[in-house]
Amino acid sequence: MHNKYCMNSIKIGTLRSVPKAAYGFVRDLRVRWALEELQLPYDEQLFDWESTNKPEYMRLHPFGQVPIYQEGDLQLFESGAILLHIAEKSETLMPSNPIERARTHAWMFSALNSVEPYMMNMVQIDRWATEEQWAILHRPEALEDAQDRLIDLSNWLNGKDYLEDRFTIADLLMTTVLGISRLFREDVVTQIPVLNAYRQNCEARPGYKKALDAQFATFAKNRRTN
Amino acid sequence: MHNKYCMNSIKIGTLRSVPKAAYGFVRDLRVRWALEELQLPYDEQLFDWESTNKPEYMRLHPFGQVPIYQEGDLQLFESGAILLHIAEKSETLMPSNPIERARTHAWMFSALNSVEPYMMNMVQIDRWATEEQWAILHRPEALEDAQDRLIDLSNWLNGKDYLEDRFTIADLLMTTVLGISRLFREDVVTQIPVLNAYRQNCEARPGYKKALDAQFATFAKNRRTN
Repeated sequence: MHNKYCMNSIKIGTLRSVPKAAYGFVRDLRVRWALEELQLPYDEQLFDWESTNKPEYMRLHPFGQVPIYQEGDLQLFESGAILLHIAEKSETLMPSNPIERARTHAWMFSALNSVEPYMMNMVQIDRWATEEQWAILHRPEALEDAQDRLIDLSNWLNGKDYLEDRFTIADLLMTTVLGISRLFREDVVTQIPVLNAYRQNCEARPGYKKALDAQFATFAKNRRTN
Repeated sequence: MHNKYCMNSIKIGTLRSVPKAAYGFVRDLRVRWALEELQLPYDEQLFDWESTNKPEYMRLHPFGQVPIYQEGDLQLFESGAILLHIAEKSETLMPSNPIERARTHAWMFSALNSVEPYMMNMVQIDRWATEEQWAILHRPEALEDAQDRLIDLSNWLNGKDYLEDRFTIADLLMTTVLGISRLFREDVVTQIPVLNAYRQNCEARPGYKKALDAQFATFAKNRRTN
């Protein structure tokens, strides 16, 4: 049922270049990190921003987002699904015990449905709509909504190193979701000691550094001067 | 690796009662529907709203939400993870072919990360913050953001009956996400013919009707008169 390591080459599809403020936040980071944890090599397939809403690209990603992922005959989209696919290659990032596995799934969906939307609402307010009246008015409530979720997560993690018994793909994903608060006017995760320690601990893994360096290198190499 | 049908009894945890406007929208509906598709019996475990932010409940669901799910030693949260667990019991809702399986995962994550957050932002604006100035100002943009995602989805589904080759757990999940627009001031899904037909087709399945009836019956039985 599960794809074990195989000889198909892996390609991560992402943007060729993004504004410097977005370095470290584009979601191919998650995928690079997961591949680093498994020490799996990959190639990049780079797309111009302008091409991602063209029909040709929308056949690869129905919502015109990045990252996409290719491995042999498999063409995949949605970072959550890509991470799940990579994690299932071994026990390194995904427990084989069915109960532990289901709990890992639960935390993956939590990261993407119960936490990230609140983080992204704050990014919209603090980065993209900064000057807009609705954003100014709504900010306190949106911040509180995000903090509520973060405090719930902090309560869960209190006294634990990881979401469940050991580092899994869910911790990797949750860490990148917690990283989004660096785009807020203030990085609220640093104000919550348990979460700050958790994020630091996960980001101290060599694979995270390698993934981050690789993303920065690609974007910097292809930086537009105009 | 996968749990096949087993003799452990299944318990769906949800709220004992909700305001009538929320009937049909509480996320235990998805779980009931998936179990109906597999013709698996289940029991309910009902919680008072007030108890869902208590430490005892937060141990079952770290964010104090519903539904939760219990099957033998497995205690699970997040509707996405619960659906994945149920779907993996057979090929009825989840293809066994690895590529089709990964594509099904992609659409599950799409429903919950690329579509639902935009739908929920509109619910916040049209239901919970109706009178607030930020909501009035932000509504046109939030609606456009939601419609953009819906149109992308419509373009993908054009000429297809399902997201991929056949009805899977991803269609079930996406259908419930598309149902959220019934909480908007106008149900925008009905204005997009491809999506409207898709939602109608999926909701015509007997399992959907059974699930909806079961949710309504439970909430109606426990309706508070105060």
